[in-house]
This record gives sequence, C-alpha cells and structure tokens, in this order.
Amino acid sequence: MAKVFEKKGLTKKSDNISDWYHDVVLRAGLAEYSDVKGCMIIKPHGYALWEKAQAVLDSWFKEDGVQNVYFPIFIPMSLFQKEKEHVAGFSPELAVVTHAGGEELAEPLAVRPTSETVITGKFADWVQSYRDLPMKLNQWCNVVRWEKRTYPFIRTSEFLWQEGHTVHADKQDAMLMVMQALEWYAQFYREHYAIEPYIGLKSESEKFAGAQATYAIEIVVPDGKALQAATSHYLADHFTKVFGVEYLDEEGNKKFAHQTSWGLSTRAIGGLIFTHGDDSGLVLPPKVAPQQVVIIGIAGKEMADQEKVVEYAGHLHKILKDAGVRVVSDVDFRKTLGFRINEWELKGIPLRLEVGKKELEAKSVTAVRRDNFSKETVTESVLHVKIPKLLETIQHDLYKKSEQSRNDLTAEVSTYDEFKDVMANKKMFIRAAWCEDAVCEAAIKEETKATTRVLELDRVHESGKYQCVGCGEPAHRKWLFAQSY
Amino acid sequence: MAKVFEKKGLTKKSDNISDWYHDVVLRAGLAEYSDVKGCMIIKPHGYALWEKAQAVLDSWFKEDGVQNVYFPIFIPMSLFQKEKEHVAGFSPELAVVTHAGGEELAEPLAVRPTSETVITGKFADWVQSYRDLPMKLNQWCNVVRWEKRTYPFIRTSEFLWQEGHTVHADKQDAMLMVMQALEWYAQFYREHYAIEPYIGLKSESEKFAGAQATYAIEIVVPDGKALQAATSHYLADHFTKVFGVEYLDEEGNKKFAHQTSWGLSTRAIGGLIFTHGDDSGLVLPPKVAPQQVVIIGIAGKEMADQEKVVEYAGHLHKILKDAGVRVVSDVDFRKTLGFRINEWELKGIPLRLEVGKKELEAKSVTAVRRDNFSKETVTESVLHVKIPKLLETIQHDLYKKSEQSRNDLTAEVSTYDEFKDVMANKKMFIRAAWCEDAVCEAAIKEETKATTRVLELDRVHESGKYQCVGCGEPAHRKWLFAQSY
Repeated sequence: MAKVFEKKGLTKKSDNISDWYHDVVLRAGLAEYSDVKGCMIIKPHGYALWEKAQAVLDSWFKEDGVQNVYFPIFIPMSLFQKEKEHVAGFSPELAVVTHAGGEELAEPLAVRPTSETVITGKFADWVQSYRDLPMKLNQWCNVVRWEKRTYPFIRTSEFLWQEGHTVHADKQDAMLMVMQALEWYAQFYREHYAIEPYIGLKSESEKFAGAQATYAIEIVVPDGKALQAATSHYLADHFTKVFGVEYLDEEGNKKFAHQTSWGLSTRAIGGLIFTHGDDSGLVLPPKVAPQQVVIIGIAGKEMADQEKVVEYAGHLHKILKDAGVRVVSDVDFRKTLGFRINEWELKGIPLRLEVGKKELEAKSVTAVRRDNFSKETVTESVLHVKIPKLLETIQHDLYKKSEQSRNDLTAEVSTYDEFKDVMANKKMFIRAAWCEDAVCEAAIKEETKATTRVLELDRVHESGKYQCVGCGEPAHRKWLFAQSY
Repeated sequence: MAKVFEKKGLTKKSDNISDWYHDVVLRAGLAEYSDVKGCMIIKPHGYALWEKAQAVLDSWFKEDGVQNVYFPIFIPMSLFQKEKEHVAGFSPELAVVTHAGGEELAEPLAVRPTSETVITGKFADWVQSYRDLPMKLNQWCNVVRWEKRTYPFIRTSEFLWQEGHTVHADKQDAMLMVMQALEWYAQFYREHYAIEPYIGLKSESEKFAGAQATYAIEIVVPDGKALQAATSHYLADHFTKVFGVEYLDEEGNKKFAHQTSWGLSTRAIGGLIFTHGDDSGLVLPPKVAPQQVVIIGIAGKEMADQEKVVEYAGHLHKILKDAGVRVVSDVDFRKTLGFRINEWELKGIPLRLEVGKKELEAKSVTAVRRDNFSKETVTESVLHVKIPKLLETIQHDLYKKSEQSRNDLTAEVSTYDEFKDVMANKKMFIRAAWCEDAVCEAAIKEETKATTRVLELDRVHESGKYQCVGCGEPAHRKWLFAQSY
C-alpha cells in the first residue's frame, strides 16, 4: 500500500539515511541541537520515549534488588586517574571544571563520563563482610563525553543513561549479574522497542576501559552499520583492588570483591528511529508510543457537521481511554486534513482513526496503520477490543520486520575479498572467522573501516577449524564485523 | 510512652539539632558527603524518598499538560549573562568548565544553576502564535550552585530538582500557573510529607534573581528556623523580552509572552528529616516510606523455634503485601533484638510488627508505632484491614503534629524589643507588621539574623493600620520573619 501524503522537505530514507535521520529528529519534535557544541535538547516527544525506557528497566532492576542512588557529577581528577586503563580510555573526552564560586579550584574536577571511580571508592567503605554482598546500585543521570563529531541521540557530548554498579563475592556471582543486565537490555529492545539486536562479547580492543570483559547489544541499522546499544561489563577486581574493596569471607579470609557495571543510554532512541522510521517519518512501536492512537476528525466548514464529529470523536476517545489505550484527538479543522495527517505520521503514532461523516453514519472508524498504511473499518461496538488487539499486531509485526532486516543485512563470508567487497558496496554485518589477534583486527579496520562488533553468545564456546578472514591464520570462532556509528 | 532502646552515639534532637540532623542522615543511610566539597552521595534510603516525591509531582504535572524535556547541563557564559539581575544573582555560585576534549574552550561553559536562560532561548524559536500558548515544560535534573557552607540535602553544591518553565499569553494566565505550582507543592508537603508549611509571597529582596514576584513554601523547622522548601516565580516578560519570545495574538499584534518557573529540590528531604525525626532517628510518614512496615521475628537460639517464627513472618508478609502494604521482614537472628529494632527505628519505618512465640500462639502481632512508640495487639484475621488503617492514622497524626508545631513556633509581636527577644532566645517564626522597605528589612536582618520569609497568601490584600516592627513607620501588612537555613 502506498503512503497517503508526501512529506515535504523530508529526505527519503533510501536516498540518504543520515539526512533522513536528522530530518526526522527535527520534524518529529524529538530533539534539537543547543548552543553548546554537541549537546542536545530533548523535546517532549523524544523525552517521553526515554521515560518509557526508564519505567520498564527501572521496574526490572528493582525486582532484582538493585537500589537507586545518586553520586556527584564531579569527580576529583586524582580519583579519576586511579585506574590506569580507565583514565587512558576516557581522558581525551573529559570536560573539566577549573573554577567554581568565583575561585580557581585547587584540584580540577572531571565531569563524570561514567562513575566507576567514585562508586568503587564508596564500595570500599560500605562492604566489609560477605554478608554485605552482593551490593547492587544503579543511577539514572547525565554523563559527559566530549565528542568531536556528534549525531543526535547517537553521539552527543552530554547524554542521559542509567549506570548499574554492583560488587559480588566472586567471579561466578558477578558474571550472573553481567548476564542478567545483558538479558534485561535484550528483552527491553525486543519486547518494547521491537528490535532484534545481536548480543555478544566484545573483542579485547573494543571492550570498556578497565573491564575484564564487555558484553554488548548491537543494533543492525538499515544502512548495514552497527549501533552499540547497551553494554554490560565484568570488571573483575581491577577497580576493587585499586580502591581497596575488600571483604571477609565466611572463613574469615580477606578477598577483593568482583565487580560489574552496565548501562543503557538515550542512544537507544537513535536505534528506535533508525530501525522503524520510513519516508513519512518516525514509526513508533505501540508499547513505547507516548500516544498510541490519534483520532482524526474530518469535517467540512459547516459548524454543525464539525460539532457532530467532535462529539463522536470525544465518545470514541473515552471508549479507548477506558480500554487502557493512550489516545489523543485532533479535531483542529483550521488546518488541512493533509497537513494534520502529515504531522501525526511524522510523529510516528502507531494507529490513526479517521472519523468523518461516513464513519459517523456507520458508527465506525477507519483505522490506518502507521507501519504499513493498511486500512480497515472497525465498528464502534468492538473498538475497545479490536484496537488493543491491532496495537499488539503492529508491535509484533514491527519486531518481525526488524528481525528479518537484521538477518537480511548479515552476510557470512570466508574470504577477505568478499569481506572487502561487502564493505565497499552495500554495507552489511559480516559473520566471519577471525584469529582474535589485535593487529589483524586493526589491519581490517584500517582497510575496510569495519570493526569487530561482537562474538555472538552462542559462539563463545565454538571451536571450529577456520582460517582467519583477515590474515589467514587459524581461527576457531566466527565474529560479527561491521562499520559502526 | 518511652522509647524502647537507647540509640548509641546519636545526638539528642533537643540537645543539638544540627548534630542530631547530621547523625540521622548518616546513620539512617540517607546520604554521605563525597570527595568533592559540598557534593553529596544520596544513598538508597534517601534516594527512595526522592523517587516518591518525583512520582507524585510528575503525575500532577502531566495531568495538567506539563511536558517533560531535557536541556543541556552546560550554558554558554554569554547566554547566561543576558538577563542582568539573573547573572548578578547567580554568578558568585557558578561552576565553570574551561577545558573539554583536551582543549581550552573558546567560551567557558557555566554548569547550570537553573535553566531560565537556555529554555527561554528556545521558547523564542518554538512560540510564534497565541495558538502555541501556553507552553508548559519541566525537567528533572541536577543543578550546581557552589556553596561555601553546605549541609546535607539542605544546601549542597550539586542537588537534584525539577524545574518547571512555562510561557503564557498574558499575566493572568501566567499567574494561574504560578499559583497552581505553589498549590502542588503545598499539597505535596501536606498530603505526602505530612508537613504543614507557610505559603506566601517573598519580599523584593528575597525574590528570585530575574523574577517579578516569587512565591514560596516555608517549613518551620523544630528549632524555629525557616527552610525554604519550594518556589514558584512569576517572571513577567523580563526574560522573554531579552530573548525575544514574541507571539502574534488573535488580532495579529506582536506581544511578549509572560513566563513562570517553579522548582522543588532534594532539599525537601531535609525538611522531612527535620520535621518528623526524633531521638531514635528518622520518622517517615507512611505515604512516602519506602518500607511502611517491618516484621521483626523474635526467637531464641533453638532452630525449631526460629523456623516457626520465620514461617509465620512469611505468612504475615504475604497478607500485608497482598493488602498493598510495602513490607519488609527481618528474621536475622544472628543480631540481637535490640540492635535490629535500633536499626529499623533509625531508618524511620512507620510501623514495626513484632512476632515471637507469644504472637505465634495467639495468632497475632504486636504492632509498635514509630512515631509515638504506642503498642497494640492485632490479630492475624484483621491484619489486612487494621494495618493499612493504622498507617493512615500515623500519616494523619504526623501531619497534625507538624501543624501544631508550626503554630506553637509562631509568635505575633508588635514591638522590636519583643522581636529581638524572640530571636535572641527561643527562636521562632514571627508574624509582625513591616513597612516593606528594603533598608528597614536589611537593618532587622543585620541585628537579629532574621529575614522576611513570606507574606502569607491570605494577607496579600491586607490593609491594616500598623506600625512597622522595625522602623516604626506606617505598615499595612503583617509578614513572617525567621532566621533561615
């Protein structure tokens, strides 16, 4: 089915996905750039998507005994510099406060890029015995990483996220936490954002600065590039040794705690836009849409006709609201119908119910799906059942489409020529055997701009007999490669 | 009734309320100071109180059509300096980022102390016509005001808050918003934090930097001092003129929008601690208590006895949870009963249910109220009804006590000698006629440390024939004075 109205000035997704993305972010009212380079203003429609993510994840965290806290945004430079790899990884991106209260500070303060250092410092005070473990904390906050090239939601100098920080008695318990967080993120993307991502282990060169192992969620953007969409780190005792997080075990022996950290940020919204949006703008999965249904009143200039439609729309509005549907009504007859439909399509509202004279007489609505523009007539008497059902169908169809797209955009290659060919032409994710040597990885990146994304979870224990796609040396696991955002 | 267990090391509230306050903050696990001067770590028990405030206020804001957004934490200095009074008011407290991404910035960035400047700048883009008005935005975020003397929750260099920012067609509509926000805050304090505050208008010298008028909520701390606990500002067109927030009215005339801003911060938690806490620690109103009831299992060393109590406690736990009560159980028999009761009293859990052999046999619990230590036996069969009822009673009693305390701590005086006498001895709020001259106000402050707190709402239109308590000149309204936190 064809789309109903041309979007003036909106780049086609297939023409230039980057221009299209920026157009959608602005025109759907999701965000704008601010006067500070690389910092974003998140507008109501964009922020509502973040609140949906917060509500879902926060409830899961709490059920699992994770407790919310708030640590200061400022980290003394000396504290920040305690873990060697960590400081090397984050120093180039720091924003630094040097003056406060009208005076130069004795010690500059880093604006947190992440909070491992301050939080681990406190774990040292709070953890004494095995009875204090595990200790699971989380905070919802802003962080700052000064970026040279920025992209709304995807890469901004300031962004919002949650950062979970936990300490455990041993590696086994910490790894359970790492995997639990990864599972939350995967479930969130699948069930709420209707996205099927790749999930797996990062290579040594791609892992978090200071981690023993990093696991990640990678979204396959429709242009074949990768978007790292959440991470979960096993930090071993790297930070706990530096900060002295020691506890007495049941036998009275002193041990260093094992640590995890995990985060998901407003970047998730970028993944959502990229995955489902189309040439008419944003497309929102019903579960996370701030408004799931828009009732559009249609009437000519006659006041009496308009009043009847307004009344009918109000009646339908109530039915849907009572059925638990997030509904909004648009009976602004001053604007043209085409303009109004355009605006709601841009905003990605999953379902549009048109009500005019025809529907009024038939006691029905014309329901138009945002995701595929299919139309159907729904009678008023079954509205409270059919519409929630239709929203479920849309949610499911979007997810299946995302899964299909991910699979279609993944190639399996065995030679470096094939690899280079893919990266030079239609970009895709590539599953290929790799020797796991960092020099080889760097050479591939240098030539193709593709980096290792993840080793999929079900391949971690693979022990195949392959040749590395890059250097030809023996390899035993197939990794996913892609160019990344 | 006497309290049950002595709190070792906890200062008595009546001996030194400041030491007591710091002890409670630390020992109840609400917050700690961090390595950065004046910045606070909000621990789970403290953060949960903030989350309660967020949930209540956020739902009221949304019902009224206020939309959540997020603006950058950094404000270019040139933007910040645009409104003259505003910059004069906040400059001494700014934290400034001068370096980022390894380079010195061309223009330093202020860390937001409040967001009028950045948000008004955007209103100028978003508001064109009267149809765009009112526009009501809010954000939940951190702000930084560098403070010389800090006090946990009450005055910290970084704090969390919500800041509402709205623009309206005219003064009348803006004032309705100012009053609505003030009413939300009052209702929140009354119904949830169980505090009866004073509500009124600030004097010219005490108003927000850049406002036409500031309204505030003032809590009467039990030491007779004032805690400004929320503010709501009418900004008139002070900022909208500077930033060019103009709109076309229905007749096609260009007009400047009228603006409001209003905020409530983590300082609210300080008010809660001060108001209800006692010599045994924190006392939480049931509506905001993260845990409303603690079931304490009592048993000797016999494993069989312990098991029976654990089983019974679990059974009661389920009954209460099903009744919608936030309940926690403590059957940690390794610790002494006294220690355990101490800890739960420190944390302020409103109701303690003791269950031991006696209760097990009688199929009952011994319920002990945190607020007044009164005990009663409640049989299991009516637990699901009686406990929620008892929690309501506690909430109500705490509120009435707060109202009584506020009134008891308010004096009405007509001479300056009386005024000075009160401020020099038992500190109180003083209601007294004042000429409304800033020089007189400053002289009173200089001599007594007392400032005008508010002109109560029902006195705004007063036109009495009084003598000013300070200078003896004619005065027509009675203001509230107090020393303030």
